[in-house]
Amino acid sequence: MHEMSFSQYAQRVYARCDALALHSQSQEGMDRRYLTKEHQMANAQVAQWMQATGMHTWVDSAGNQWGRLKSDVEDAPTLMMGSHIDTVPNGGIYDGILGVVLPISLVEYLVDQDISLPFHLDIVAFGDEEGTRFGTTLLGSRAIAGTWDENWKTLEDAQGISLEEAIKRFGSDIESIHTASRLQEKVLGFIETHIEQGPVLEAQDLPVGVVSGIAGANRFQITVKGSAGHAGTVPMNMRNDALVVASEMIAAVQEIAQETDVVATVGRIHCSPNAVNVIPGKVEFSIDVRSEIDARRETAVNILRQVLNKIAIRRNVDFKWQVTHGAKAVLCDPQLQHLLTEAVTASDYRPITLSSGAGHDAMAMANMCPIAMLFMRCERGISHHPDEAITVDDVEATLKVLVNFMSIYLKEYQQNKNTIMSLPFVN
Amino acid sequence: MHEMSFSQYAQRVYARCDALALHSQSQEGMDRRYLTKEHQMANAQVAQWMQATGMHTWVDSAGNQWGRLKSDVEDAPTLMMGSHIDTVPNGGIYDGILGVVLPISLVEYLVDQDISLPFHLDIVAFGDEEGTRFGTTLLGSRAIAGTWDENWKTLEDAQGISLEEAIKRFGSDIESIHTASRLQEKVLGFIETHIEQGPVLEAQDLPVGVVSGIAGANRFQITVKGSAGHAGTVPMNMRNDALVVASEMIAAVQEIAQETDVVATVGRIHCSPNAVNVIPGKVEFSIDVRSEIDARRETAVNILRQVLNKIAIRRNVDFKWQVTHGAKAVLCDPQLQHLLTEAVTASDYRPITLSSGAGHDAMAMANMCPIAMLFMRCERGISHHPDEAITVDDVEATLKVLVNFMSIYLKEYQQNKNTIMSLPFVN
Repeated sequence: MHEMSFSQYAQRVYARCDALALHSQSQEGMDRRYLTKEHQMANAQVAQWMQATGMHTWVDSAGNQWGRLKSDVEDAPTLMMGSHIDTVPNGGIYDGILGVVLPISLVEYLVDQDISLPFHLDIVAFGDEEGTRFGTTLLGSRAIAGTWDENWKTLEDAQGISLEEAIKRFGSDIESIHTASRLQEKVLGFIETHIEQGPVLEAQDLPVGVVSGIAGANRFQITVKGSAGHAGTVPMNMRNDALVVASEMIAAVQEIAQETDVVATVGRIHCSPNAVNVIPGKVEFSIDVRSEIDARRETAVNILRQVLNKIAIRRNVDFKWQVTHGAKAVLCDPQLQHLLTEAVTASDYRPITLSSGAGHDAMAMANMCPIAMLFMRCERGISHHPDEAITVDDVEATLKVLVNFMSIYLKEYQQNKNTIMSLPFVN
Repeated sequence: MHEMSFSQYAQRVYARCDALALHSQSQEGMDRRYLTKEHQMANAQVAQWMQATGMHTWVDSAGNQWGRLKSDVEDAPTLMMGSHIDTVPNGGIYDGILGVVLPISLVEYLVDQDISLPFHLDIVAFGDEEGTRFGTTLLGSRAIAGTWDENWKTLEDAQGISLEEAIKRFGSDIESIHTASRLQEKVLGFIETHIEQGPVLEAQDLPVGVVSGIAGANRFQITVKGSAGHAGTVPMNMRNDALVVASEMIAAVQEIAQETDVVATVGRIHCSPNAVNVIPGKVEFSIDVRSEIDARRETAVNILRQVLNKIAIRRNVDFKWQVTHGAKAVLCDPQLQHLLTEAVTASDYRPITLSSGAGHDAMAMANMCPIAMLFMRCERGISHHPDEAITVDDVEATLKVLVNFMSIYLKEYQQNKNTIMSLPFVN
């Protein structure tokens, strides 16, 4: 057997991300949406790599691509790994897909080492995480985790094509969507590897970090109504300037987020009439609040609402607070987190635990099995942008952590099962 | 002679504003722009009312409508009154035109009283004050005051029609535009009556106020560049949020305006990428600073620039300060102001002096002769909007002030000229 170096496995992972980037709806930036021709071609490419390792492959009724490293053990349970194959428009080439091609190379390594597992190792490329095409996220993983919503079939894309029709054109049938669910099976857990999409690992000079949980989030739409007026003729003390009030509120959002230890962002603002010589009469803005700890997020939201309301009363403006989104935090499985942390240590990296502020397929999978996530450093924390970048060295580090995780996991699994099998540590 | 009451004169003024509102390019809101068919029809209507008083009328080469109550005195000088006949799109029916139809009724009163003046009384309806059609303001009054710019002939409207072509279609010729100038004539002064476009008179419960001057103005375009990022994944202490910094700056603009006694407005803001889940990377906003006292405005601008720059340095953002407009203040003639104030007192109203934050034709006319302005109360200070509203009582009050002004002015004029003529006070 020709022994490949870890660096070579890593270079292959890196090259495969480039290769998949060719399947894009746009020539300029990366754009691959759910149930498109490009999705189908990317699935086929991933399946081909899976098959080359000896994995058995299939596409489920929701368009998710699967590969299985089959165990010889009768009635074996399944350990799952994977991430999403779709991208946002004008996106990057690593967000999602890294978590698909990295575990394929893990399988290649296991096969190269002649390791056979006492459980199936399934790798999945979820068809939709970003929700860009139909406006609803996690469609692929929710079908698998048994939380598909019947009402989704009437969702439409920008061209007016319904989800039902898109699934049909993809070669499936929405009536059989329930067959994608793996809820009734014996699933040991789901491990997702993903670029961090934030700057923490880079600031800590670390290639990899273990995720503690995925933040819960609230979104609000705030409307502040003052009085429009001529910028030259209304004295300062007779004004009711909606933008000045909104500015005070935006500063308060920042302060309250820091005091309550959540992240909060005013990302969108719309001022009206938005003319140089008119005092703003109305300002609308969004607030996005996230925390891994639901109680902390709820506290922050309550304080925000009270403080903004007080500002509105003191400043004599109309104030509307509208909830547009709410989702609870999803915590990663403590045992899987522990094993991943041990794997990081075994790989000679300082273990670090991060919270995920962004949503991930693992959130949906948590309905079905224990979940865990591994974050890999990305340049300047940039994602959802063509500048998204990673290094081969970090891929190599992350692959080592996955190998060492498998080693530790196998040992734990076998202690429980009383069977003998081992995979040596690497670093 | 049938004696009309002041209330009847006022009702006529009020009704004439309604009548002129019929000449609008739009059925919904008022819209009458320079050199349009509607402008021509409004000119014709005004000329007809002028002619009915016995005034001699003409349209000058720039499209301004004139009427003259001719003096019998040989080589008499001219006192001018008037305002503009154009409106903004979706505007009101009193802004501008009130200052045309009110002096016509003043002439009717003088004629009804058999008063003949030792100077010509010219009433003008300027063709363009708002600048809505060609993007440059005060075209009518600048032609009269001798400050027409040769380069303006290539200005184009939204349909690509040049100012030169529009003047031609109006029946004039841009080559003869200089004949509109009255710069070489003996002009005693220009008095403009206008709605306040602000809330001060209403707050003071007064129908009328004397204007001290027209504010100078500066406009700036500010650009704040921070770093965009994922709203969920970038910790608060690692953010470089351009909107949070802009908010601090907007609050500072408000504070500095109050401290330095100017008016300052952030009317327009644009945030980018302006998405709910993205930390704002760039914010652009406008600042409009006005004061009747140029030194005060300049002080305010200097402080603003320093304070905003300090905020940018402390907050570690790129900061660009771009000047987009600058105009010096124009002061009203002290003697004319004094006579108008006496006229207000003679009419039994408490005299009040106001600064005009908005621009007016009087600014242009100041190049040619002493100017003065009288502001009339309008409902809630609203202008440039279909809700613009005035009362017949206030028109009556303002007409009385104009009559009393003529009485005082005549007396002053005759003291200088040693002629005998008088007009009794009214109230």
